[in-house]
Amino acid sequence: MENILVVLPVEQRHRDKLEAAAPGQRFVYTCGAEPTREQILAADIIIGNVPAGPLAAADRLKWLQLNSAGADAYIKPGVLRPGLILTNASGAYGKAVSEHAFAMTLMLTKKLHLYRDAQRQSRWTDYGTVSSLSDAIVLVVGLGDIGLRYARLTKAMGAYVIGVKRRAGACPEGVDELYTTDALFDLLPRADVIMSILPGSAGTYHMYTAAYFDRMKESAVFINCGRGGVVDGAVLYEALTRGKIAAAGIDVTEPEPLPADSPLWQLDNLLITPHVSGFYHLPETFERIVDIAAENLAIYFAGGTVKNIVDFETGYRH
Amino acid sequence: MENILVVLPVEQRHRDKLEAAAPGQRFVYTCGAEPTREQILAADIIIGNVPAGPLAAADRLKWLQLNSAGADAYIKPGVLRPGLILTNASGAYGKAVSEHAFAMTLMLTKKLHLYRDAQRQSRWTDYGTVSSLSDAIVLVVGLGDIGLRYARLTKAMGAYVIGVKRRAGACPEGVDELYTTDALFDLLPRADVIMSILPGSAGTYHMYTAAYFDRMKESAVFINCGRGGVVDGAVLYEALTRGKIAAAGIDVTEPEPLPADSPLWQLDNLLITPHVSGFYHLPETFERIVDIAAENLAIYFAGGTVKNIVDFETGYRH
Repeated sequence: MENILVVLPVEQRHRDKLEAAAPGQRFVYTCGAEPTREQILAADIIIGNVPAGPLAAADRLKWLQLNSAGADAYIKPGVLRPGLILTNASGAYGKAVSEHAFAMTLMLTKKLHLYRDAQRQSRWTDYGTVSSLSDAIVLVVGLGDIGLRYARLTKAMGAYVIGVKRRAGACPEGVDELYTTDALFDLLPRADVIMSILPGSAGTYHMYTAAYFDRMKESAVFINCGRGGVVDGAVLYEALTRGKIAAAGIDVTEPEPLPADSPLWQLDNLLITPHVSGFYHLPETFERIVDIAAENLAIYFAGGTVKNIVDFETGYRH
Repeated sequence: MENILVVLPVEQRHRDKLEAAAPGQRFVYTCGAEPTREQILAADIIIGNVPAGPLAAADRLKWLQLNSAGADAYIKPGVLRPGLILTNASGAYGKAVSEHAFAMTLMLTKKLHLYRDAQRQSRWTDYGTVSSLSDAIVLVVGLGDIGLRYARLTKAMGAYVIGVKRRAGACPEGVDELYTTDALFDLLPRADVIMSILPGSAGTYHMYTAAYFDRMKESAVFINCGRGGVVDGAVLYEALTRGKIAAAGIDVTEPEPLPADSPLWQLDNLLITPHVSGFYHLPETFERIVDIAAENLAIYFAGGTVKNIVDFETGYRH
C-alpha cells in the first residue's frame, strides 16, 4: 500500500474521484494547508505543489504530481532525487491563462489602461488612435495548450498568427505560420503583438535581451504570462521608457511579489497583474487539475507511464 | 450644379473618391475645420456632422450625410427642415465600437481594472476568482452592425448569445436566441453580460431604470457603448454601489464630457472611457465613412434612394 499525500484544497467529490483512481491506497489530505515535513517524508506519492525544502530528504517519494504547469522550483539541481517522476498540470490552465493574456492584449491595444488611469483622476481625455487585432500579426512564443488557445482567440478576431515552438511539427489549426525557437529573433520585426508563454528554465532565463526589444516594432505590444525570469525587469523598463515598444502586459515578474519600490509599477505603458492568470481563479482550472491527477493515479497503479512528465532540462513536458 | 460641403478631414485620395461619385458638382472642403454659417447656408448637400444651430435656416439643404452612427443631435424637433434627407454612417463603426466594448467586457470580467488600480499603488494584491465568457450568457441589446459584431466576438470565446432588436426576424449567425425589445426586461435575469448599443432617442431615454438593474444578476457586467442618456447616471451609481450588479463599463455618459465632480469617476467597479470607441480611432473607420458617403453620392445623383436614411422617430436607420 502506498502513502498518497494530497495537498490540494479538495472537496469530498474530488476525494471520491482520486480514491476511485487508486483503490486500496492510503490517502492523506492536508485540505489545502501546507504539509508538515513528516507528511512529506512519509509519502510515496505527492499530489500538489509542496515546499521544495524537504523534498531532497524524501527517500520514499517516487512521484510528485504538481498542481502547476510551471515546474521551475522543482527542476533545480538537488531539489528532487534523480529518477523521481515529476509531472505537471499542463492543460489545466489553458483557458484561464490564455483568456487573461488575451484580455491584457485587448486592454493595451485599445488603451484602456490609460483610460482607467485618467478615470481615477476624473479626466475626460482622448488618447487617440488604437489598433485592431484584425490588422495585427500576433507572434505566440510557446505553443502548448495556453499558447495555442491564445493563438485561436486572436485568430478569431482576425489576427494573422505566427507560432514558435521548440520542436518542428505540423502547423496546428489557428496558426498561420509555424517556426522553431531558433527563428524567433528574426521574426520579431514582423510582430504587432508578441505573447510569450515560456516556462522558467536555464534556457529561457533572461532570453528577451535588449537586442530582442530593439528588433521589435516601436508599436509592438509584449505580453508575458509564462515566467518572470524570462525577461530581465531592467531590460523591460528600458524598452518601455525608451520607446522600443509601445506597451507591455506582464502577469509574472522577477522576483514575485514585485517589490514595492520597483520602478516597473509606475510605468504608464506597462500593465502588471500579480501572477493571477492561472491559480484557481477560474473554478474550472481546479477541476481539471483533479482530473489530471486522478487520470495519472489510474495509469500509475495500472503500471503505465503517467502523463505530463516534466523534462528536468527544459521545464516542459516531454 | 449642387454645392456639396464636405467637413470631413479628407486627404486627396478621399476627395478623388467623392468627386468621382458626383462628377460636375461643386465641392467645398473645410478639411476637418468647423464650417462657417455661410458655408452651411450655401450647401445643397453636407457630408459630415456640422453644428446643429444653423441647420434650421439652411433653406437650400436637401441632404445631410452624417459621419456618425448616432443622429440624436439632428433628429430633435426644429433642427432639420421636414422632408430633408438625413443619413448616417451606420456600418462604419462596427469594428471599432464592437472591439472596444469587447475589450471592456474582458477587462471587467478578468478584473484588470482592479489590478490596474492596485498597480498604480505598487500593490501586489490578488482579487480572487474571475469568470470566463465561455461560461457566460451574453445579452446584446441592439443588433445592428456593432451589436452583431460584438455578439460574434463573444460567441467566438464560447459565450451563449441572446440578441434583442426592434423588429422580429431570422436569428442571425452568431446569435443563439433572438427576441424583440419588449422581451428585454424578462431576459435580464439570465444574462451574465448585458451589452447595450442603443441610439439616443425619446424612446431609449433613461430606459434602464432601477427596476432593470434590480432584475440583473448581482454578478452581471453591464456595458453601454450606445448613448449616455439611455441610463440615468444616478441609477447606474446606485446599481453599482448597492451591489445590484458586479461591474459596468461605459463609453458614453450624460452629459459629455462627464463633469469632473461626478461621483461615477470614483467607482472601483465602473470603467469609464470618454466616448472614444468610435470616432476615427481605428483608421479603417474613416475609410468606411468616405466609402459610405461616396456610394450615397453616386446613388443620389443617379436619382436613387440613398442608404442609411435615419428615422426621425427612433434615431435608427429605416
